[in-house]
Amino acid sequence: MPKSVDHDQRRIEIIEATWRIVARGGFAAATMRQIASEAGFANGGTKPYFATKDELLAAAYDRTFFLVNERAGAAIGETSGLDAVRLLCVEMLPLDQQRAIESRVAMAFWDRAASSDQLRKLHADSYAIWRHWMDNELTAARRRGQFSAELAIVDTIDELLAIVTGLRVQAVMTTAGRLTGDRLRILDRAIDRLRNSPQPTSSSKTEVLVDGRRVAGEFFRRS
Amino acid sequence: MPKSVDHDQRRIEIIEATWRIVARGGFAAATMRQIASEAGFANGGTKPYFATKDELLAAAYDRTFFLVNERAGAAIGETSGLDAVRLLCVEMLPLDQQRAIESRVAMAFWDRAASSDQLRKLHADSYAIWRHWMDNELTAARRRGQFSAELAIVDTIDELLAIVTGLRVQAVMTTAGRLTGDRLRILDRAIDRLRNSPQPTSSSKTEVLVDGRRVAGEFFRRS
Repeated sequence: MPKSVDHDQRRIEIIEATWRIVARGGFAAATMRQIASEAGFANGGTKPYFATKDELLAAAYDRTFFLVNERAGAAIGETSGLDAVRLLCVEMLPLDQQRAIESRVAMAFWDRAASSDQLRKLHADSYAIWRHWMDNELTAARRRGQFSAELAIVDTIDELLAIVTGLRVQAVMTTAGRLTGDRLRILDRAIDRLRNSPQPTSSSKTEVLVDGRRVAGEFFRRS
Repeated sequence: MPKSVDHDQRRIEIIEATWRIVARGGFAAATMRQIASEAGFANGGTKPYFATKDELLAAAYDRTFFLVNERAGAAIGETSGLDAVRLLCVEMLPLDQQRAIESRVAMAFWDRAASSDQLRKLHADSYAIWRHWMDNELTAARRRGQFSAELAIVDTIDELLAIVTGLRVQAVMTTAGRLTGDRLRILDRAIDRLRNSPQPTSSSKTEVLVDGRRVAGEFFRRS
């Protein structure tokens, strides 16, 4: 059905033009006329696709959410557990030009959504899907003994999403300074902390913890 | 000098009116006329105080930053180290109505600052001050052996600021759902993780780590 494909393609063109406008000067300052012009439409030509600026902003955010999930799904493949959680978070982090734009669009969306019940609902829905995804993988990791049993899953998800969201804000606000690799390292520290103590291997290592300090060596239990 | 005091007082009235406007419908949609009216000024009456909307937004953000620091300073008092870092972070978290408005104002500021070198500079300066403050306290904590020696201070600050920033975003976007107490618990988990293993006490405890798993008991080193 070429007509429907055309329609979808046009929507994406308008959304991508909106991203460029957001990246250049923000969404609030842009007019529908400017956005139409950026997308190569006559003034008013975007109306059949997006009736209002809020509708367009919702679609612009929703597409960043879709792309994060599409990339994460592809990256995850047959991986599961903590590695899958990590790969999902990596796709949210602004580690390249595309993901930096997605973070910038999300920030414009938050600001407007804070004053709109309808847009805030869309935000809640997207985070609920991420939470559900992470919950599944953390539960799987726990079942296999890979995820520390002392940590509450819901708190862990809250914290990971807070870290990723905070790093998205910091990245948008920082043109120079801390580098991309630093953001990835912050995420990796957080993921590694969740891993269970390593399982026994052939090269066995023994240490004694005396009041929390490690002493390596060979030890024998008093029986 | 009563004239200067009046001037400062007027500025604060306009800033607080701006906060209320941001909380109700966002900053982008507000006009200077609306803000003047909310502050009880005639149209144009705010001009001598803030020539442009950006100037007003900068002042509105700057005052949230000032208030966080003022409250944190009072709460910290003679406290230092990790407890001081925690108290600073607590004042950033949206745990009550006032701090929720501050987070909402910060979000409006970020969105605009992302497209303004001047505003982004103000953001960078405020975060630099927070980083410096946390750096001092973490360094003091390390000197006293309270802060785990394995953690890089700069990464720790990055992560704490990401968590707090992310929790601010989540709070603004969530009217229902996760509660205030949950956000404080997420922060406390992060702070507690940084604490060094407890120092020796009279009731000494010994454990053996065999391939990472703890076994409690009394042990003797083979000599």
